Order: sequence, then structure tokens, then C-alpha cells
Amino acid sequence: MTTGVRRRMGVEERRQQLIGVALELFSRRSPDEVSIDEIASAAGISRPLVYHYFPGKLSLYEAALKRASDDLAARFTEPHDGPLGARLLRVMRRFFDFVDEHGPGFSALMRGGPAVGSSTTNALIDSVRQAAYVQILSHLGVTDPPARLELVVRSWISLAESTALIWLDGRRIPRAELEVQLVHAFAALTAVSAAQDAEMAALMRRIAQAEPADGPFADLAGRLPALAT
Amino acid sequence: MTTGVRRRMGVEERRQQLIGVALELFSRRSPDEVSIDEIASAAGISRPLVYHYFPGKLSLYEAALKRASDDLAARFTEPHDGPLGARLLRVMRRFFDFVDEHGPGFSALMRGGPAVGSSTTNALIDSVRQAAYVQILSHLGVTDPPARLELVVRSWISLAESTALIWLDGRRIPRAELEVQLVHAFAALTAVSAAQDAEMAALMRRIAQAEPADGPFADLAGRLPALAT
Repeated sequence: MTTGVRRRMGVEERRQQLIGVALELFSRRSPDEVSIDEIASAAGISRPLVYHYFPGKLSLYEAALKRASDDLAARFTEPHDGPLGARLLRVMRRFFDFVDEHGPGFSALMRGGPAVGSSTTNALIDSVRQAAYVQILSHLGVTDPPARLELVVRSWISLAESTALIWLDGRRIPRAELEVQLVHAFAALTAVSAAQDAEMAALMRRIAQAEPADGPFADLAGRLPALAT
Repeated sequence: MTTGVRRRMGVEERRQQLIGVALELFSRRSPDEVSIDEIASAAGISRPLVYHYFPGKLSLYEAALKRASDDLAARFTEPHDGPLGARLLRVMRRFFDFVDEHGPGFSALMRGGPAVGSSTTNALIDSVRQAAYVQILSHLGVTDPPARLELVVRSWISLAESTALIWLDGRRIPRAELEVQLVHAFAALTAVSAAQDAEMAALMRRIAQAEPADGPFADLAGRLPALAT
């Protein structure tokens, strides 16, 4: 709230303000539970004025989701410096930051509640998954991924999503543990694929050889033997 | 097609026939592309008669999905005999049989196309996931799962789903390899969780000690050391 005379906003500025207000509300509670009246009230404008900028709640929801998707995709960008395991761990931290900030909205979206599931929202979800996939391949230095690598990377991305959703449901496990766990899971799923395929085994050796002894990938390799005893 | 006089079906018999015909069509192509006319024609009855039994395509789709869900959940049932890894591999084979039989419909459903995503379809999907979860816990002999075990099992179930979806998109990897890979992934994700948690480590040791040297779990353990060289 600013004191004094309210400045008149331009069209695009008002749209951006409404998107921000809506995203805040959609993030904190399931989007089904957020009304246009509430958004209008939080933005300090009338309900008809909201409809002047957005024809309905779905279009405002989609605009808010677009902003959140761009935000999340941007968090996947990581400098190509240092060990891969450490890079992935930093990205996992930023991913859980995002999930933490947008918990109820993220859950409702990914679980496919009634207000979501439009072709636009599905396309936005897919675009974020694709951004994650492209980033991971670029860090692996692979431009033309074999089918098994594509499967490992894409199925690991879905594992990260489901892990975040399960975490949100009660937050019974410290998120820092899950961030490390997902980095370890990436190495483990690569190893599982490599156990059946020579090309994946070669990729895995290349990754492992570049990892330092104190990185998260080596950390897992160091802990596993103790489990077998 | 039977020759001779067409027998008049009772109401429930006709409903079940329509569900079977619809499930067949919804399995082979995306449900969006299947019309009521086509279902009527395949069932050998008129379009108005289809509407007599089902008020619309969604209700027929939901009934077909209910039958498919019951079928899939039944395939998770496995005798509590022999090593866990071998049991899980048999279930994975039946899971891929199901995915193979219902490919396009399974993809459309799980990717959340426009004709799907109702609260009924979401509830059916959740009920199948829950059936898988309950079966796995019963085979592990766990009645009150700690949070980390729940996370491993539920996130592995989502990994199995995404693996099947990626397989369906081009079938570029032999399904038998992926069936083994998912069994290995279960062991690997349990190991990853166990690397950070003593309770999971104890569970993992209990499982590993009961596995035979020629089972799929031991098979993975035998292959991994070769990757590190």
C-alpha cells in the first residue's frame, strides 16, 4: 500500500500487477479456492476492472502460470563450471525454493484439479519439463541423446516432480535431504541404465571421472558399500 | 459378429458390452478422436441407444476407465512367495502388458488431454496408484511406513508411469529391458534413501539378505562395480 494519491497505471503495467497479485494468491491456496473478488480486492481495484484486463479467472490463472513457469525455467540455468553433481545440487536447491514458495498452487496444478488441466496449462508444464531436459543435456555435453539417455533424464525429471509433491504433503522430510537425494537418484538411475547398455556405461564413466572425491556423486558411491554389510 | 437372430440384451449386459467396445476404441486411439457414432457402430446399435445407456461420452469414458483401472490394479496382485526382486519383475511384466494393450488411451489419460482430467478420472488414477502402493508395502511386510519409505515407493510408482509413457512414444527401447530397469531402479532408489537414513538402511539390508544370488536385485549389485572401472 502506498500512501497519498494513487497513480493511474498503464494497461500493461496493470496487467502485470494483476498477474503478480493473482500468482501470489494462487501460490498460497489451491487456485479453485481463489475468487476474482479476492484478486480484485488484493489488487485494490473493482471486480469489473479485473474483467477489463482478463476475460475470466482461467485467463488470469494461465497468465500467472506463465510467469511462474518462466521463473522456474530460469532457475534451471546454471553456469557450466565445476563438477556436474554440485551443479545439479544447486539447481535442486533453487527448484525446492520454487516449490516452497508456490506450494499449494504447485500441488493443485500438478495433481490436475478441476480448474487446471486446460491445453494451455498442459503446454506450460511441458515447456518447463522441456527446459529442464535441455539444460541437463547441455551440462552433460550431449547434443543428440540416445533413447536410453533421454529416458533416464525425462523419467528423472518426473521423479523430481513427484518427490516435490510428496514433500509438500506434510513436509515430513527435510528438503535439504531430498535435494541431495535427487542428485543421488540421478546418478543411480544413470547407473541402472548403464548396467544394461554399453553406451550409457561409457557416458557414466565420463561423468564419474570428472567428479571430485567430495562431490555429491562420489558421496553416494562412498556410502553404498556400507549398506551391503 | 454372431450369425442368426440377434438376441436381445438385458440393460446391464448391454452396458457391459458398450463399456468393452468403448474401452477397445479408447485404448487404440486417443479418446478425443473416438466419437459416439463410432462406438455405436462398433457395438452394432444406434447412436440414440448408446445415449439411453450412457448420458454422454464422458460417462462412457469414465466407465471404460473404471474397468481398465480395475484390470490394472488386479495385475499388481502377486503371491507372497519367493524373492522380492522376482515378484516385482513379474508385476512389471504385467504392467507393461497392460500399457502395451492400452497404449494410446494410457498416454492420453496420463498426459491429461482435454477429454480427460475430470475429478472422476483423477480419482481413478489415484486409486490405481494407491493399489500399487498398498501391494508394495504388503510385500515389504511393512504396515506403518516411515515417511522416507512412503516417498521412495510413491515416487518409484511415478517413475514407472513416466517410464511407460516415454516407452510408448516410439518404443525405441525393448520393454523387457525397461521391466528389469524398473526393478533395479526400485533397489537403487531404496539404496539412495538408505544412504542418508538408518531406518531405510535397515530395511534395505533386510531385503538384500533375502535375495538370491541370481535374482534381479543381486544382478544389479553384480553389474555396478564394473561401471566404476
